[in-house]
Amino acid sequence: GDAKAGRAKAVGCQACHGLDGLSKLPDAPNLAGQVEPYLVKALTEFRNGTRKNEVMSVAAQDLSDADIANLAAYYSGIQIDVVPPG
Amino acid sequence: GDAKAGRAKAVGCQACHGLDGLSKLPDAPNLAGQVEPYLVKALTEFRNGTRKNEVMSVAAQDLSDADIANLAAYYSGIQIDVVPPG
Repeated sequence: GDAKAGRAKAVGCQACHGLDGLSKLPDAPNLAGQVEPYLVKALTEFRNGTRKNEVMSVAAQDLSDADIANLAAYYSGIQIDVVPPG
Repeated sequence: GDAKAGRAKAVGCQACHGLDGLSKLPDAPNLAGQVEPYLVKALTEFRNGTRKNEVMSVAAQDLSDADIANLAAYYSGIQIDVVPPG
């Protein structure tokens, strides 16, 4: 996927997931640094109906395979540092 | 949820998701710092069959409501720092 194209497409995701991949809503997951194949799978499953969510089942309908690859590249590419739990 | 009890229960999650919430597998998402109500919803949906995954649909069967709350408290409580995308 092309992260730069994904960033442009992520304008449609940012109200819930943030352009930085940090959730704006209790029901929306953070996407920053998320595993790339997991993101591709999630979006593909929302698009084909295997996975259902009121918002995402609709939002994913408009995504091409390239859009999905690009969005996954963009959000997975955001660097996160984890503070190891004590 | 009780994060300390969640950490103990997370021993059963760590092979795929890490005890630090960082994925060990391409199909498994990071859980570190994930939104707590999202995690509760995900586990509840895997348990009740609304959401399906070969591994999680089985793993979630053994979880009580308290287990789910505790795991969500544990993983959501792991601090993450996001490096803002350029």
